[in-house]
Amino acid sequence: MIKAGIIGGAGYTAGELIRILLLHPEVELLSVVSRSHSGEFLYTAHPDLEGDTNLKFDSELSQHADVVFLCSGHGKSKAIVEGNILPESAKIIDLSSDYRIKGEHDFMYGLPELNRDVIKTASYIANPGCFATCIQLCLLPLASKNLLNKPVHVSAITGSTGAGQNPTDTTHFSWRNNNASIYKPLKHQHLGEIKQSLEQIQEGFQQPVHFIPMRGAFTRGILATCYLELDESADTIKKLFKEYYAGHPFVTVSDSSPDVKRVVSTNKALIHVQKEDGQILISGVIDNLLKGASGQAVQNMNLMFGLDETLGLNLKAIAF
Amino acid sequence: MIKAGIIGGAGYTAGELIRILLLHPEVELLSVVSRSHSGEFLYTAHPDLEGDTNLKFDSELSQHADVVFLCSGHGKSKAIVEGNILPESAKIIDLSSDYRIKGEHDFMYGLPELNRDVIKTASYIANPGCFATCIQLCLLPLASKNLLNKPVHVSAITGSTGAGQNPTDTTHFSWRNNNASIYKPLKHQHLGEIKQSLEQIQEGFQQPVHFIPMRGAFTRGILATCYLELDESADTIKKLFKEYYAGHPFVTVSDSSPDVKRVVSTNKALIHVQKEDGQILISGVIDNLLKGASGQAVQNMNLMFGLDETLGLNLKAIAF
Amino acid sequence: MIKAGIIGGAGYTAGELIRILLLHPEVELLSVVSRSHSGEFLYTAHPDLEGDTNLKFDSELSQHADVVFLCSGHGKSKAIVEGNILPESAKIIDLSSDYRIKGEHDFMYGLPELNRDVIKTASYIANPGCFATCIQLCLLPLASKNLLNKPVHVSAITGSTGAGQNPTDTTHFSWRNNNASIYKPLKHQHLGEIKQSLEQIQEGFQQPVHFIPMRGAFTRGILATCYLELDESADTIKKLFKEYYAGHPFVTVSDSSPDVKRVVSTNKALIHVQKEDGQILISGVIDNLLKGASGQAVQNMNLMFGLDETLGLNLKAIAF
Amino acid sequence: MIKAGIIGGAGYTAGELIRILLLHPEVELLSVVSRSHSGEFLYTAHPDLEGDTNLKFDSELSQHADVVFLCSGHGKSKAIVEGNILPESAKIIDLSSDYRIKGEHDFMYGLPELNRDVIKTASYIANPGCFATCIQLCLLPLASKNLLNKPVHVSAITGSTGAGQNPTDTTHFSWRNNNASIYKPLKHQHLGEIKQSLEQIQEGFQQPVHFIPMRGAFTRGILATCYLELDESADTIKKLFKEYYAGHPFVTVSDSSPDVKRVVSTNKALIHVQKEDGQILISGVIDNLLKGASGQAVQNMNLMFGLDETLGLNLKAIAF
Repeated sequence: MIKAGIIGGAGYTAGELIRILLLHPEVELLSVVSRSHSGEFLYTAHPDLEGDTNLKFDSELSQHADVVFLCSGHGKSKAIVEGNILPESAKIIDLSSDYRIKGEHDFMYGLPELNRDVIKTASYIANPGCFATCIQLCLLPLASKNLLNKPVHVSAITGSTGAGQNPTDTTHFSWRNNNASIYKPLKHQHLGEIKQSLEQIQEGFQQPVHFIPMRGAFTRGILATCYLELDESADTIKKLFKEYYAGHPFVTVSDSSPDVKRVVSTNKALIHVQKEDGQILISGVIDNLLKGASGQAVQNMNLMFGLDETLGLNLKAIAF
Repeated sequence: MIKAGIIGGAGYTAGELIRILLLHPEVELLSVVSRSHSGEFLYTAHPDLEGDTNLKFDSELSQHADVVFLCSGHGKSKAIVEGNILPESAKIIDLSSDYRIKGEHDFMYGLPELNRDVIKTASYIANPGCFATCIQLCLLPLASKNLLNKPVHVSAITGSTGAGQNPTDTTHFSWRNNNASIYKPLKHQHLGEIKQSLEQIQEGFQQPVHFIPMRGAFTRGILATCYLELDESADTIKKLFKEYYAGHPFVTVSDSSPDVKRVVSTNKALIHVQKEDGQILISGVIDNLLKGASGQAVQNMNLMFGLDETLGLNLKAIAF
Repeated sequence: MIKAGIIGGAGYTAGELIRILLLHPEVELLSVVSRSHSGEFLYTAHPDLEGDTNLKFDSELSQHADVVFLCSGHGKSKAIVEGNILPESAKIIDLSSDYRIKGEHDFMYGLPELNRDVIKTASYIANPGCFATCIQLCLLPLASKNLLNKPVHVSAITGSTGAGQNPTDTTHFSWRNNNASIYKPLKHQHLGEIKQSLEQIQEGFQQPVHFIPMRGAFTRGILATCYLELDESADTIKKLFKEYYAGHPFVTVSDSSPDVKRVVSTNKALIHVQKEDGQILISGVIDNLLKGASGQAVQNMNLMFGLDETLGLNLKAIAF
Repeated sequence: MIKAGIIGGAGYTAGELIRILLLHPEVELLSVVSRSHSGEFLYTAHPDLEGDTNLKFDSELSQHADVVFLCSGHGKSKAIVEGNILPESAKIIDLSSDYRIKGEHDFMYGLPELNRDVIKTASYIANPGCFATCIQLCLLPLASKNLLNKPVHVSAITGSTGAGQNPTDTTHFSWRNNNASIYKPLKHQHLGEIKQSLEQIQEGFQQPVHFIPMRGAFTRGILATCYLELDESADTIKKLFKEYYAGHPFVTVSDSSPDVKRVVSTNKALIHVQKEDGQILISGVIDNLLKGASGQAVQNMNLMFGLDETLGLNLKAIAF
């Protein structure tokens, strides 16, 4: 059994991790750290867990953890990693953005559909962003064949859980319900990791990626739509996508245009390819808290520990 | 492996059954019958299943099924059962209301928290209604101690999936979103099975049960609130509930007032007891498609086949 | 023209007042006070007003106001009234709960369907609570004929705007969307003003009013359902309601069971009467921000200044 | 008083027209035709109208109408116009798409912000589409200065009322709630009228307009985001927009990025200009049933009859 620890245990991504790990056949949830909730039952912060576990939040991480998930939020992981509070031999999976961009650190970018072999031998993983995951899954097969040679146009809509647990003006129900809005248009912070990955597999990639992020009146999920001018037929591109994802259990190339609820509460991605008006258009959906965060973190853990990639991640869809 | 068949395979309850059974470790999904979709992939009717299964709808039920789930809707199961099209030795679990009221038939009422021992040896099960399940879970412990001696007042709100798949005025998004309404106040059809169960365990029960059903602007879940005048203290009643449900794995007596999303996408029920103004008030939540329909059907199947009651039913909550 | 001032101008009820008063033919919006937004355009706090007005928030109330609306919230109006900062001759309409219960003050309870004649000559009005308005409209005609002689059972569901602007756990979109819950069951604070009104018109009224308040996944509106044992027929009671509300322009006795969106964004109330199982059941809907708050405040203002009660309050419904 | 008739009176756009016209100071609603509802009260189809009007649906249009609104839906107006059932002298405003594209007919395209002078003298108006209105308002000022010289990229999201009243798979609450999806990407039928208008005011315009339409989990409103490569600064373009819309009362150029609910239930449009990454980005919001349909129809009527353009259209926003 893998002994797992979580730091930043009271937030949304930690909650989803706990839900998965409690049901994972090869994991013992050893220690969930939350300063604000130390000593309380996990279900005080995650009330759906009542009846499932009587674990309590710790104030300090157990030193017996084999793997530690960092869920404290962007900008905080670095201090934790550098603070020498983590067990020396533990593998680390960071769900923040702190280590996603290559630099003077040993974290590998944990997108299995891009870096599976590297992940298998890695000790430190930077788990990708939610928008970044969905958009990369739409573009990687094209980049792998050097087909991104025109500007790429992306619009994508996210559920409110992407904004985390702290209440804000844009997560107030009275505002967000029955509403729609854009934010950070053409300058969302995930563009950095998206471009880094595209450059990794398409040599010399330097096309602009124009990205309009939208806030939707829903809680979970991301729908991304990407298009660019391309001579190839829809069939050719679809075949390419099917080949690219043939060995990747969580990605399905669908014949129909996806809606978010087809994957909500699962670790799956659905990708659809079509051609209209001279443009190849790729649309994809994921659950931002699963394939876009905690599910992908467990997928990475499975790979790092030599387990079947899907272990503990065959989840029933919500569908409605 | 139990070989399972489903009749009426294109509807909501069938879809949820398929989602569960595909992940159930002791079940082989043998045959899913739908006249309207015969020959098509299951995922044409249940698009979240794309990538999970390539099974197709059958036009006729396989005669090798060990258990058959009837999902064709109220009023249709009787014709199926009497039509001699089901395998003679198959156990039957009917998700419609056709056999819930005792009469000239061999179906047992499949509420495990009321009838577990009977279910274990039954061949034919009438699966309870969704409102009926939630309300009975709030009242059964009281009835078991003959404490229902005053009129019982129930208000309960349901998600739209309770109304099924056929589009109607009250399931049109433009109407139901951001809205609330009542229907069939004081005369909902589930009152019959509720009273039948209360009479079963409280001898001479004859109190009125006043029930206001409400339609909510959500898709899954039921919240029921029940109160009656009672001398006993909240602590006494809470202790009674904890004892009653001690051996029932899906029911948790919670210290906090439940909201629907604490159980959505699970087979769990959360029940809360409090006392205010001389009234004992019980509130409970379930997912109408799971504990209120398909999850309970699988729970019944597990019991009928001598399996652990929870097998295949430890489901991750949606939480958001 | 009536010169109107508003204190506590950045909140929800103030916003709705501003929307109404800007279109009111007999009102000049003189001064909207908000400490937190002083000097800013009104549309910084109420962004739908951009393009409609270039008024700015004041730090102090103009002393030329003929009427002042107090919108600072429960518990704050008393300090304002006693602080001698209001123009001496100004009429005051308080939207908080501070003066709703009779006591050592000069405020009259501003429910026109109960107290219209008194309101016409009043200088100080305590504007009713939202739940209280809806429930009273369901019960007043019965009380007026001394028909409330059995316990009254009420369940009512409210939109999120009833909880105000401050973000809380229960107004977080990720939680409230697609959800349902109850709160303060059998002990909601509006019971006080409801009982006070019933006692006012039914001599010796002393029946319990059991009230289950519910939070709905919608933004605006209240649906209340009230029932009690009563010998009279539905027709008799319906006739009584029609007579009671004959001269009240905002209340319609409907032949059909109402849903919230039939009145959202209007000052209307729809009331439906039926009889089931020996119980007379009254259901009613209002918009909590209009008939339940700011619309009713303007209705009171109209009456206090001798205007047509409906002036500025013929509002287009949202319907969807 | 203008005598108004409506054909196709039971649908969404007709309902919204009735709501407006009943409150319009210069209109008498003479005749609302619906074959399916003939003889019934208007409020049987539009239940929010109960208490507001006792008008009934007609089977035939009164021949005394001064203006007739055609609301029967796309493809049906032509048969009505050619069927000689309309009063000869009546002005006609068609809310369908039948006459929006120039051809062998006398209908003028009724977008006041493009064609106000023409509309004032027209007898027959083709009322623009909802997406088309919003997108044109984002692009017209640029076209008026010949600035559309690069491909234009548009993503836009619409509420469910845009899909009309007939229940469909994509307007079923169980599906649409908490969901997001795209449809007709890069080939939406409104592109025709959009390009026609751009060609009208930018001579030689021939850039592609790439348009991704999205379905949102909300009922009313459209948010459109449009961008293209442009050298000019944000300030320059913003100034241009302010000048273009200076005389147009329903369009406001806002300093902040708009969300849908800032205009829902009003006839307003909010437009925001920014520059990011070398692209000028214009975002705009309207209510699809008002400025995108029935409100604009009344705006056109006002212009055609020489009335103030805003008469009857100063509507309170819903805001929440």
